[in-house]
Amino acid sequence: MSQRSRLTVAVVGATGVVGRTMVQVLAERDFPVGELRLLASGRSAGRTVSAAGRTIEVGEAVPEAFEDVDIALFSAGGDVSKDLAPAAAARGATVIDNSSAWRMDPAVPLVVSQVNADDLEWHEGIIANPNCSTMQLAPILMALRDAVGLDRVVVDTYQSVSGTGAEAVAELEGQIQAHVAGAPKAAAVYPHPIAFNALPEIDVFLDNGYTKEEWKVVAESRKILHLPELRLSCTAVRIPVFVSHSEAVHVQTTRPITPDAARALFATVPGVVVQDDPARHEYPLATKAAGRDEIFVGRVRQDPSVDGERGLALWVVSDNLRKGAATNAVEIAEALVGRDWIRARSRRAGPVGAPA
Amino acid sequence: MSQRSRLTVAVVGATGVVGRTMVQVLAERDFPVGELRLLASGRSAGRTVSAAGRTIEVGEAVPEAFEDVDIALFSAGGDVSKDLAPAAAARGATVIDNSSAWRMDPAVPLVVSQVNADDLEWHEGIIANPNCSTMQLAPILMALRDAVGLDRVVVDTYQSVSGTGAEAVAELEGQIQAHVAGAPKAAAVYPHPIAFNALPEIDVFLDNGYTKEEWKVVAESRKILHLPELRLSCTAVRIPVFVSHSEAVHVQTTRPITPDAARALFATVPGVVVQDDPARHEYPLATKAAGRDEIFVGRVRQDPSVDGERGLALWVVSDNLRKGAATNAVEIAEALVGRDWIRARSRRAGPVGAPA
Repeated sequence: MSQRSRLTVAVVGATGVVGRTMVQVLAERDFPVGELRLLASGRSAGRTVSAAGRTIEVGEAVPEAFEDVDIALFSAGGDVSKDLAPAAAARGATVIDNSSAWRMDPAVPLVVSQVNADDLEWHEGIIANPNCSTMQLAPILMALRDAVGLDRVVVDTYQSVSGTGAEAVAELEGQIQAHVAGAPKAAAVYPHPIAFNALPEIDVFLDNGYTKEEWKVVAESRKILHLPELRLSCTAVRIPVFVSHSEAVHVQTTRPITPDAARALFATVPGVVVQDDPARHEYPLATKAAGRDEIFVGRVRQDPSVDGERGLALWVVSDNLRKGAATNAVEIAEALVGRDWIRARSRRAGPVGAPA
Repeated sequence: MSQRSRLTVAVVGATGVVGRTMVQVLAERDFPVGELRLLASGRSAGRTVSAAGRTIEVGEAVPEAFEDVDIALFSAGGDVSKDLAPAAAARGATVIDNSSAWRMDPAVPLVVSQVNADDLEWHEGIIANPNCSTMQLAPILMALRDAVGLDRVVVDTYQSVSGTGAEAVAELEGQIQAHVAGAPKAAAVYPHPIAFNALPEIDVFLDNGYTKEEWKVVAESRKILHLPELRLSCTAVRIPVFVSHSEAVHVQTTRPITPDAARALFATVPGVVVQDDPARHEYPLATKAAGRDEIFVGRVRQDPSVDGERGLALWVVSDNLRKGAATNAVEIAEALVGRDWIRARSRRAGPVGAPA
């Protein structure tokens, strides 16, 4: 592949947990990166990041930094995205944004790669990457929607601290060390100690008593699945796990389905792996999903509290930094390249991804 | 109170986590103990346990050890209870058994003190103490059953390792120390490391795909609440917490109820404390519930996925060693004393709990 057919890719928030994973996933998946531009706040600019065997200096994320960028992967928080995504898009970049800033904007597609990549067609420069808790659930719900219809879904989450960011990982680590040393556990990132605890508070509280995280699962699932009336309830809980979110899912379907049929169905979904052999203690596990790009589903069983074989109980686990964030963002970029839906500048640069 | 009006109390499994808590709760609540007989397997017999300022030697749990015992609190596993509870009852003791051995026996009352103490009336020498996950849920469900009726309940649990026993507490502690030391994490009590993980396997798997722990919540709730057809689904998950179980609960009620009305209702239930001030980050927490005898409920909100204000989402936390096991067992003993329902021998000894 010639340098001309390669893309200029910017990663905004490149020093963060998700940003660093984005850089790693781009390299692992051999995405056709020509120039890789790592950007961050002025505070982090000047630092260096090792990526694909090179050491790259981090530049400041300002509008001018997006000149000649084809694809900009944002993971620097909602405020940065609100400010800079339009500036990047105005310069011809296609923005894939991991914050919540644009997700519910009707003009912005919200895409899980294996669920609704067709929504990429109507993007106008900004594409939203869903929240990690929603991400791993959507392909499972899509499969059930298409096969037997969705009536109601209850999801309770067991979320890792890396979903909050590097400072939360450090806080858990510090509390663990304090525990071993017999010292008090200081909490600053979270309102209470996360070590040896379960915190039913992720993101801010809304007027309806749900947290914003819980409501994201509701609203984003509806948008991604094209089911604006989907009935879904969620309790989102942070637990002392470093990487991977786990979810207990209870689905009421419109038509009957057996656990065997559900397992066979899930096995057909790209990027989904069925792990369901209780006799051998095999089921999705946070520690085993960490570092993997797939969504793992298991503990599939008929829920007898729903009549007529229309209930399923499931356990769904995925690496929140990868499929829950970085991997899906790169998959969106791949889909754009594959369908030639990158915007103006990259089209000017000739066919993207064509052999040299 | 004279020595004669006091009771001879045996604690079986006195060296275990729950057994030690039983000894502690008996002392804290000033239960009218005359002689305290601590019993355990032959392996643990001869050890000493400190209780109420005294050091007591642990005797071997054999049938003869229950001679002259009024109340025997068992927490030594199902096999010990199956063997020895009938032997103790045959000698006139009233057994309050914390194992799962007798819970579903139609001739054995299964009692949560503030829910169905009236069931104690038909005991024939053995009374079962419910599973910890069921225990903390039952008073909440009772209140809703009585006020607005129960249609369907979904419960996902976040359970602490102390529910497994002292060896599981040591295993988590060891894995945490290994993490800090950079050493590998050995798992023996659980099939996978529990540190920084969420294990969706508690107790053995049943043919229907549920674990026995999950099915206990279903079957025991039905028996305690006198609702043999109650529709309930549960996923039971072990997380790296030392003490207290947390539960995300989603209730469909028969008639409408608002969150305000639900909070007011819960506040009337003995032993239940409403903690629900999200603006101040106040909600039930495992670390804060540890060492307390109450059941804490919060995050009360309308579940909009159920029509007609018939849905509630809740977060329920309680110390699994106390209300989930030891405290309820002692509360049952108190209820028996208060109602003069201790069996033959104690009646022979004169009015129980009467002033000297």
